[in-house]
Amino acid sequence: MREPLEFADAVPLVDHHCHGVVRADLDRDAFEALLTEAGTPPGPGESRFDSQVGLAVRRWCAPVLDLPADAPAADYLERRRELGADEVNRRMLRAAGVSRLLVDGGFRPDELTTEAELAALSGAEVGTVVRLEHLAEQLTTTAAGFADDFRSALAERDAVAVKSIAAYRVGLDLAGERPTDAEVRAAADRWLRSTGPGRAEPGRAGPRRLADPVLHRFLIWCGIDRGLPVQLHCGYGDPDLDLHRADPLLLTNLLRATASSGVPVMLLHNYPFHRNAGYLAQVFPHVYVDVGLATHAVGSRAPAVLAELLELAPFGRVLYSSDAFGLAEFYLLGAVLFRLGLAEFLRDTADAERIVTMISSANAHRAYRLA
Amino acid sequence: MREPLEFADAVPLVDHHCHGVVRADLDRDAFEALLTEAGTPPGPGESRFDSQVGLAVRRWCAPVLDLPADAPAADYLERRRELGADEVNRRMLRAAGVSRLLVDGGFRPDELTTEAELAALSGAEVGTVVRLEHLAEQLTTTAAGFADDFRSALAERDAVAVKSIAAYRVGLDLAGERPTDAEVRAAADRWLRSTGPGRAEPGRAGPRRLADPVLHRFLIWCGIDRGLPVQLHCGYGDPDLDLHRADPLLLTNLLRATASSGVPVMLLHNYPFHRNAGYLAQVFPHVYVDVGLATHAVGSRAPAVLAELLELAPFGRVLYSSDAFGLAEFYLLGAVLFRLGLAEFLRDTADAERIVTMISSANAHRAYRLA
Amino acid sequence: MREPLEFADAVPLVDHHCHGVVRADLDRDAFEALLTEAGTPPGPGESRFDSQVGLAVRRWCAPVLDLPADAPAADYLERRRELGADEVNRRMLRAAGVSRLLVDGGFRPDELTTEAELAALSGAEVGTVVRLEHLAEQLTTTAAGFADDFRSALAERDAVAVKSIAAYRVGLDLAGERPTDAEVRAAADRWLRSTGPGRAEPGRAGPRRLADPVLHRFLIWCGIDRGLPVQLHCGYGDPDLDLHRADPLLLTNLLRATASSGVPVMLLHNYPFHRNAGYLAQVFPHVYVDVGLATHAVGSRAPAVLAELLELAPFGRVLYSSDAFGLAEFYLLGAVLFRLGLAEFLRDTADAERIVTMISSANAHRAYRLA
Repeated sequence: MREPLEFADAVPLVDHHCHGVVRADLDRDAFEALLTEAGTPPGPGESRFDSQVGLAVRRWCAPVLDLPADAPAADYLERRRELGADEVNRRMLRAAGVSRLLVDGGFRPDELTTEAELAALSGAEVGTVVRLEHLAEQLTTTAAGFADDFRSALAERDAVAVKSIAAYRVGLDLAGERPTDAEVRAAADRWLRSTGPGRAEPGRAGPRRLADPVLHRFLIWCGIDRGLPVQLHCGYGDPDLDLHRADPLLLTNLLRATASSGVPVMLLHNYPFHRNAGYLAQVFPHVYVDVGLATHAVGSRAPAVLAELLELAPFGRVLYSSDAFGLAEFYLLGAVLFRLGLAEFLRDTADAERIVTMISSANAHRAYRLA
Repeated sequence: MREPLEFADAVPLVDHHCHGVVRADLDRDAFEALLTEAGTPPGPGESRFDSQVGLAVRRWCAPVLDLPADAPAADYLERRRELGADEVNRRMLRAAGVSRLLVDGGFRPDELTTEAELAALSGAEVGTVVRLEHLAEQLTTTAAGFADDFRSALAERDAVAVKSIAAYRVGLDLAGERPTDAEVRAAADRWLRSTGPGRAEPGRAGPRRLADPVLHRFLIWCGIDRGLPVQLHCGYGDPDLDLHRADPLLLTNLLRATASSGVPVMLLHNYPFHRNAGYLAQVFPHVYVDVGLATHAVGSRAPAVLAELLELAPFGRVLYSSDAFGLAEFYLLGAVLFRLGLAEFLRDTADAERIVTMISSANAHRAYRLA
Repeated sequence: MREPLEFADAVPLVDHHCHGVVRADLDRDAFEALLTEAGTPPGPGESRFDSQVGLAVRRWCAPVLDLPADAPAADYLERRRELGADEVNRRMLRAAGVSRLLVDGGFRPDELTTEAELAALSGAEVGTVVRLEHLAEQLTTTAAGFADDFRSALAERDAVAVKSIAAYRVGLDLAGERPTDAEVRAAADRWLRSTGPGRAEPGRAGPRRLADPVLHRFLIWCGIDRGLPVQLHCGYGDPDLDLHRADPLLLTNLLRATASSGVPVMLLHNYPFHRNAGYLAQVFPHVYVDVGLATHAVGSRAPAVLAELLELAPFGRVLYSSDAFGLAEFYLLGAVLFRLGLAEFLRDTADAERIVTMISSANAHRAYRLA
């Protein structure tokens, strides 16, 4: 009988939620800025490497760049520059062992690799996750036309799924039922007439920021109506977030209202509310969960976090995502730490190989109807 | 010196909160429907056995039916049918090693074994937990007569404890103080005059569903006034629940108001808020806690969950319950996993035997004044 | 290479939040009353030693009093009386291995050792943490004069930090921005004119209890304006607390508003919300965190709790505190269990010695500008 880690390593992962990586070479400041969710540079005497994720980069990524495990940060960054971003990106994405990437390209797209570039770097097939708010914010529309214009815009996209960042904008305490046309029109009117600061990405030029509970619900229901799996940001993220408004339990009404649609709803990240997410995956027939982002962020603790998710979450409803953004290292770390966690969880467990295959790949194939 | 598990196995458990088991033989669909808290059947390609509780059934229950540990689910169900429900129920309940069962028979009583049947199957003594809302919903009464009629009905019951499911109906954010007669009358009037859907058990014929903060508080105070320990559903349950409204911390005001009564209040289940429950058990003099239901639901993770409960909960305030419902397997799993958890917790601990006895049995004898 | 525990033991700790210890000899009732956060005496048949902290006292403190590890509670208390409180206090504080104590003397000061006494007992340098609410409650002032009078009183104190117990009084869901002079005056007027019960410490003579969101914010901003690190009680405490209002995530707005000040904000205790606190330490540039009080309260589980804190918290933002109050044993337990936790966390980790030094001492030196 093979060891759990041996066959976990052998199963290619479907990474159902990830982003592009930076094309340019990164100096230390730029690398550290991408390493955690902090909103500001490290203070005097601080380094972002002094963290679980920093230790994990040195432990697991250094050997991919031909350095010894636990190489000092300075050596790591020097070697990274020596090889060049393109070679580093390729090595990390190849070493991740992924067969499919579902890419959300709606955040800071100008700086990051495209889907085609990710496909070339990784050797994986790539699908598109359309960020609902980003699509809405690109529209040139009117209050009366917004609903139809958005539906048309979504229909034109070749999407494998949609994603909402309502958690960042208004929190997850959303009513469940589909908003009426009149409610959507009134909300769109408020939005389009609003003035003052409100760029979609603070500090950048760009369209007006959508942040209205009715509109987020409308966008989510548009995904449901098209039969597109809906990814929802839950839990851990950057300081734009009010984390206590991002507990997935706040989605209970929306999950009740959408359960009969049969369209999958994917609760992303979830940390530190991942046990709550596991509960929702158990009691609702269409809920899938992951601990992406947290997996690399908590480094050596990833197996502990995954084990908590799996307390209640049915094995058929757990997915893998890296939520890698910016640094290709996160593709590798997510994959390595997830496989370590799975292997530890499944030690002494019946049907370990079958469960690894479900969680690593088969669940995502079923939920997203991947070929 | 004996190993902790050896004497944990030797102490008969008081299971202070449990339910009847199904008398009939169960096919795969019916068995799976009872295996988790999901509200709907498994989807295509899904099996409820692909979960922590499913693995636990195969690991721990299969040998009780003369199968090898980790027997496939199909073999398990076939053997279960071969032996017949009555024999399976007897084997599981006997193997649980319980001396006393406190049974809440107020949910779907027509399908489940009675207290007398549970006593015969288990060899344990049996006491009655009266479900407050169920008793109120059975009354033929008026707004003016409700308070007295309920008190009379409760007085007629030979109860060892009462239980409230306010968490399911209105959430646990209840005011603390005893409601006045006028408040109760007004609330009863609203309840009895309400129309529309509202059966006590959705999808079934039956009385009007009680869901009013004043009435739940009234029922709880009726238990306090009779000196009957009050069991409160907290945390994990089926999708009728808004889990974020079932955090036991929301009971803080009610616990302050009832502390001087000296009547024990038992916080049931609590997962994933079990650390919060442990805190309440430490700071309030009358609060007892368990992690029933979760113990079998999280399978191999039960020791980790129990260890978290025991971080702050005084050892004299922790109780055992299976919260078994429907499947006799849960009586066995609750007992086995709880004992494993206790034994792991108490490894290298002073007074391990004494603490096992407290938590397994003595605390419940004291709190419920059992003979 | 040295074992992590070996060098963790060798680094003197800065205990950045602690209190005095009782000077008098303690009988069993008085000792048990200080052992946990319970608000009332143990019930019949109960002992506070039957808890994680009770086991920890017997395990780790008994040898300091020349008893075998795990000595019975009665033997421990007898030996404690035999040696006398002063000798016990000296032994515990010396054995803790602390170089610096930052002492909050604002709660029940008459019964406890002074800063000078703590310095003599421990051999450590001592600094003062001014409890904001206590200082305000001592003022003889008017609504119009309150703001200036408070600022003057604070300026006269030789403080290394300030502390707010807003969590106990109104909860942590505070607006962020600095209140205006008019708001402070109106709030002070309400406070000073209020009647009815409201002593600052229930059951004691003393000044009127301050409990007003505007005033707590004002006090906190006074600390910020003086450049004094602000300690905030979060999470676990006695039953005066509504624990669900003490989640540090509720401080998000205040943390956003104070981030640009550069003045450190220290989130104290945090259990069971310590993962939330770790998140805040990661995303805000001025947030420091600890798990004081919990460290000794959860006994053998302290390493598990610390590991959860360190999932997201940058290693440069984690501090040590005992939150010892009343019993000198807590100085020892905090130190021993914290070091065990650090050593366990850092096993097989790169740069373990450097990280131990940061968390044990260097972070506090930097944040509090200690000599």
